Amino acid sequence: MSVNSFGRLFRFTTWGESHGPAIGAVVDGCPPGLAIDEGQIQPFLDARRPGQSRFTTQRQEPDQVRILSGVFEGRTTGTPISLMIENVDQRSKDYSEVALAYRPGHADYAYDAKYGFRDYRGGGRSSARETASRVAAGAVARLVLPEVTIRAYVSEVGGDMIDPGKFDEQEIGNNPFFCPDAAAALRWEKIVDDARKAGSSVGAVVECYASGVPAGWGAPLYAKLDADLAAAMMGINAVKGVEIGDGFAAARLSGEENADPMRPSVEGPDGAPAFLANHAGGIAGGISTGQPVTCRVAFKPTSSILTPQPTITRSGEATEMFTKGRHDPCVGIRGVPVVEAMMALVLADHKLLHRGQCG
Amino acid sequence: MSVNSFGRLFRFTTWGESHGPAIGAVVDGCPPGLAIDEGQIQPFLDARRPGQSRFTTQRQEPDQVRILSGVFEGRTTGTPISLMIENVDQRSKDYSEVALAYRPGHADYAYDAKYGFRDYRGGGRSSARETASRVAAGAVARLVLPEVTIRAYVSEVGGDMIDPGKFDEQEIGNNPFFCPDAAAALRWEKIVDDARKAGSSVGAVVECYASGVPAGWGAPLYAKLDADLAAAMMGINAVKGVEIGDGFAAARLSGEENADPMRPSVEGPDGAPAFLANHAGGIAGGISTGQPVTCRVAFKPTSSILTPQPTITRSGEATEMFTKGRHDPCVGIRGVPVVEAMMALVLADHKLLHRGQCG
Amino acid sequence: MSVNSFGRLFRFTTWGESHGPAIGAVVDGCPPGLAIDEGQIQPFLDARRPGQSRFTTQRQEPDQVRILSGVFEGRTTGTPISLMIENVDQRSKDYSEVALAYRPGHADYAYDAKYGFRDYRGGGRSSARETASRVAAGAVARLVLPEVTIRAYVSEVGGDMIDPGKFDEQEIGNNPFFCPDAAAALRWEKIVDDARKAGSSVGAVVECYASGVPAGWGAPLYAKLDADLAAAMMGINAVKGVEIGDGFAAARLSGEENADPMRPSVEGPDGAPAFLANHAGGIAGGISTGQPVTCRVAFKPTSSILTPQPTITRSGEATEMFTKGRHDPCVGIRGVPVVEAMMALVLADHKLLHRGQCG
Amino acid sequence: MSVNSFGRLFRFTTWGESHGPAIGAVVDGCPPGLAIDEGQIQPFLDARRPGQSRFTTQRQEPDQVRILSGVFEGRTTGTPISLMIENVDQRSKDYSEVALAYRPGHADYAYDAKYGFRDYRGGGRSSARETASRVAAGAVARLVLPEVTIRAYVSEVGGDMIDPGKFDEQEIGNNPFFCPDAAAALRWEKIVDDARKAGSSVGAVVECYASGVPAGWGAPLYAKLDADLAAAMMGINAVKGVEIGDGFAAARLSGEENADPMRPSVEGPDGAPAFLANHAGGIAGGISTGQPVTCRVAFKPTSSILTPQPTITRSGEATEMFTKGRHDPCVGIRGVPVVEAMMALVLADHKLLHRGQCG
Repeated sequence: MSVNSFGRLFRFTTWGESHGPAIGAVVDGCPPGLAIDEGQIQPFLDARRPGQSRFTTQRQEPDQVRILSGVFEGRTTGTPISLMIENVDQRSKDYSEVALAYRPGHADYAYDAKYGFRDYRGGGRSSARETASRVAAGAVARLVLPEVTIRAYVSEVGGDMIDPGKFDEQEIGNNPFFCPDAAAALRWEKIVDDARKAGSSVGAVVECYASGVPAGWGAPLYAKLDADLAAAMMGINAVKGVEIGDGFAAARLSGEENADPMRPSVEGPDGAPAFLANHAGGIAGGISTGQPVTCRVAFKPTSSILTPQPTITRSGEATEMFTKGRHDPCVGIRGVPVVEAMMALVLADHKLLHRGQCG
Repeated sequence: MSVNSFGRLFRFTTWGESHGPAIGAVVDGCPPGLAIDEGQIQPFLDARRPGQSRFTTQRQEPDQVRILSGVFEGRTTGTPISLMIENVDQRSKDYSEVALAYRPGHADYAYDAKYGFRDYRGGGRSSARETASRVAAGAVARLVLPEVTIRAYVSEVGGDMIDPGKFDEQEIGNNPFFCPDAAAALRWEKIVDDARKAGSSVGAVVECYASGVPAGWGAPLYAKLDADLAAAMMGINAVKGVEIGDGFAAARLSGEENADPMRPSVEGPDGAPAFLANHAGGIAGGISTGQPVTCRVAFKPTSSILTPQPTITRSGEATEMFTKGRHDPCVGIRGVPVVEAMMALVLADHKLLHRGQCG
Repeated sequence: MSVNSFGRLFRFTTWGESHGPAIGAVVDGCPPGLAIDEGQIQPFLDARRPGQSRFTTQRQEPDQVRILSGVFEGRTTGTPISLMIENVDQRSKDYSEVALAYRPGHADYAYDAKYGFRDYRGGGRSSARETASRVAAGAVARLVLPEVTIRAYVSEVGGDMIDPGKFDEQEIGNNPFFCPDAAAALRWEKIVDDARKAGSSVGAVVECYASGVPAGWGAPLYAKLDADLAAAMMGINAVKGVEIGDGFAAARLSGEENADPMRPSVEGPDGAPAFLANHAGGIAGGISTGQPVTCRVAFKPTSSILTPQPTITRSGEATEMFTKGRHDPCVGIRGVPVVEAMMALVLADHKLLHRGQCG
Repeated sequence: MSVNSFGRLFRFTTWGESHGPAIGAVVDGCPPGLAIDEGQIQPFLDARRPGQSRFTTQRQEPDQVRILSGVFEGRTTGTPISLMIENVDQRSKDYSEVALAYRPGHADYAYDAKYGFRDYRGGGRSSARETASRVAAGAVARLVLPEVTIRAYVSEVGGDMIDPGKFDEQEIGNNPFFCPDAAAALRWEKIVDDARKAGSSVGAVVECYASGVPAGWGAPLYAKLDADLAAAMMGINAVKGVEIGDGFAAARLSGEENADPMRPSVEGPDGAPAFLANHAGGIAGGISTGQPVTCRVAFKPTSSILTPQPTITRSGEATEMFTKGRHDPCVGIRGVPVVEAMMALVLADHKLLHRGQCG
């Protein structure tokens, strides 16, 4: 019942703080015999890595992953895979202010209220740096899912949405925003630049789909695929909302508008059905339907801003704080590889779970 | 790792199908010595019970709960509390059509794809009837939380929202919609009546808050209070979206607008801080801050409608189906007691979890 | 993390007290499509049922099991199977003495120390009556294991052992002791009769084997097949010791004596190996080897005896107690079906677990 | 549901193979604020460390532990504690024989049957080297248990038992066998020397007690303290039997002989009772009674011996194998710190669990 673990059969546990010697993940339950080396994990970490454009934090971390166990002669052995990423750019700075007072919107006060004290250096355990461990674990999860394609992208920055009609998957990798709409990406440059220069921040929405998921994954009633995805996404730093399929928009449709009718597939009676719509986001009753699994994730603007905000010290005195140092003006951008990783981790778990009960 | 269980220390397992002899829940981990009898559970079941107005399904179920274990001389003993609700109104009807084809938007196809067959009577295990078990378990969870007040209400039906300025908590119990805005409730009568008469359905949004939650509940990083709430709410039948605090709206705010500044409380240096806003919904870093915990939940329109929809038979042939019989024109209404129950269940679990690790 | 649940993928939760209205089990994770009805469960409950000879307690319980969910048209659906057994013979008696003082050797004091009070009627939750739920769940587990034969028997009563040379499996069902040695069964009649007449009690050793278990079940390092069996058996009421294979005797062998050499099976190079011995009890490194899985389980003499023993009252005063009423002079005898059930439950769980990770 | 994890609230996960770069453990759920540094863990690792006398394997491992997370300014923060021990003495040797055939009595065949292949270097994941991770985690568990004293010792080697009348706790640290009886230790020198010189091996029995455990820890019915201890101990490499209290000997006692009568403690009516015996090993109904918790653990002789044994190759051909290289003639000796660690880990978990539910 580790509260730092996620998953049932394909299960990972993360550890580490922003300014400790390293962070890492232990992936347990990975099936044996899968070809793996660091080279299959590193590209995903590189995508999440900070400091790659002026639109993300300037912390410089190579985020080089090492596999410490569970792999032999280039294949997974079925035993725990220990992944470690050393912390390199722990910039020496004066943390006395953060030590003594609570940054509004951060987890500082909550951690102190829970644990009595906290590792205040760079956010400690609550730092978004922990998501590197998720991304590494997610790369292993992908090995379990050769039949599935997972893709996430940013669909909205600072309230400015992409034009769905201009969605171009090829475009996602062509701009620093993981944006599938080239025109929107240009607009976002200014939005994020403005926020950065003003010491402010903006929110974002990330969308993700997984195609190739067969019908039948998921488990009623308290391990539903959508419920697990909701937990996976809501647990990412700065996330405040999750939708499956049409999400809140579905609440504004009629039953007729929201229907996902079926017809026989062209492969004939034995094939999976052809759906005429996918309002449900590929999940019914908590179980995959064979359509693409889709979700949307809302990232708040980071609380790390230059404008001073009223707050209190650890001893309860009034003060003001603002954030010095390196931060993401739009933390949702770097959320894209994390959302993909969590999608992969949930799906890998449910694939094994389904095989165990129904295989 | 029961996939029909929820919670860690305060944990419940539900069982039962719509048209079996009974449904029920086993609540494990409830602290000993709490005063309890059926009379404390029944009112919550009554609030969820169908057939109480023309706006909900006309199935007539007394939903009388029995405590079968775990209670002695009117107090919880610390051992599992078995709750059972007999199914009474299993209207004898012809299920041959549902047996042979898949109702679009329902879990029929997904269950068949997963398990190879299904109990098709009334939706079987995927019926919203299962939520009665959650409500019963939730009533037990409330006993663990005397310091907490939980209240849910409908804020939107068929796209028509309440006026936040007319929010009146007293009004919630005065209309069949759990609506805190009397004027909106009147409008919704027509919306839901129209849907019912047309054999259609409408969606809804349910909001919920819990006040009195002390700072410090929740557990980074994979048992975050918000992540657990997201799973709890997304797992309710017909739910497609979950927001904590400002949710998706937060993605459209600037860092300054979204800040939750603090000042010293009037009780002085040792008191909990006074927050100047609650965009975060009472949770930071996955841990409660002492502010009210708030969430919003989107319910899709039920897929049970009179308009025929294209679908396929179990053998893959094209056909059409529409729903005969008793159904909810707005299933979100009866979601209110379920949302409250899931909030209580998550909070009770985290209270015990916090006490175990940090108590 | 229900502490009243057991198993990972094939998982059951029990509830109920000796003198409540009923006891039961919820079996979650049973694969779909297995033929099942009460008739497949009842014989195992009948074997455990008290009052069948003068050598077991005279409580008369029909122990009639009802399936309340998870089964449709005679097959498991993959959803939770709720099993209920009503308590019938809750003999009305005066429990005031047990309420006020602690029976030595029983769980009375421990329950009070943990929970502050207890359901003292007939032992409440700590009654051996709970094992009926295990036996019912175990009967479901057997359905998952058509390839496996599980057999338990009593090998020792009151220190008197069977003659291994006279082991006759057919004999097990021919006497009230589940004894495979007819001569020993005759001796035990006198031993148990003497204990019964003297108001005393004797201990017993139960042995169990499972043949047909393929190599590869079990999971290093903290879900080892032998570790799970140890927990399963030690958790049975009155059990104080568990051995796998040669157990403590192995600690007195040399490495040569304890070796389990292998040679090719007669089926040739592709067959499973032929083992020349089975000191290991069919498990190596926590994983099955394909040999029979064997274990031995020690049952203490029940603490319910007529000889008064010094004890204390709830308020800490000295007193004496002895057991009035109906009790087992040798509780290990009725442990046989329980040991078999726990073996089946552990194996079913590991079969699914193995299929999930490696299937 | 990681199968490489143990515990519920105080939970650890281990990873690593004998000949990989490192092994380690992630301890999750440790309460915050406990003073800790490597110096509190290292002595326990040193006690387990090989190569300290001629009676244990000559592999030379410094077993230097590093804390990588979860500690700040010398105190636990409540977040996961990552412990890492680098593998240093991975002696370069030719593993081709072990790669191609199965060592009898080892987990080689079982791993291959389960996973299809295995890391054969030094036993891979099934190596006793993994127990170093347990010992490190156990040292953290001890910090949670300042009120408890845990002590294990060897009571029997190669069938030669200590004289209980000569038990001297001070003696345990004075000989290389953790033996509390100086005369027995002298005899064991010859027994183990003889085995070592003959390339043979002998078994051992380790006993352990924990005093200071208050009444009330443990959780009926499937997280019983004794069941958890049984799993913990049976999961240690080479263990084949576990007893709580009198264990198998209790099966040979009468109910009168096995009674643990109570009288008022000298502190008067409000104190814990004074028990007149402890046949139960400090546990009744799965819950601690306040008496010392005692268990006995049987270690088989290691299968690594010089006498060739018949076995088969991976392709099923007959062959013979014997063990070359460094091995323990009596692996039970180094089991002592491991048994202590597992006792600490189980107790720490149950302390937190009890506080969570009943605190």
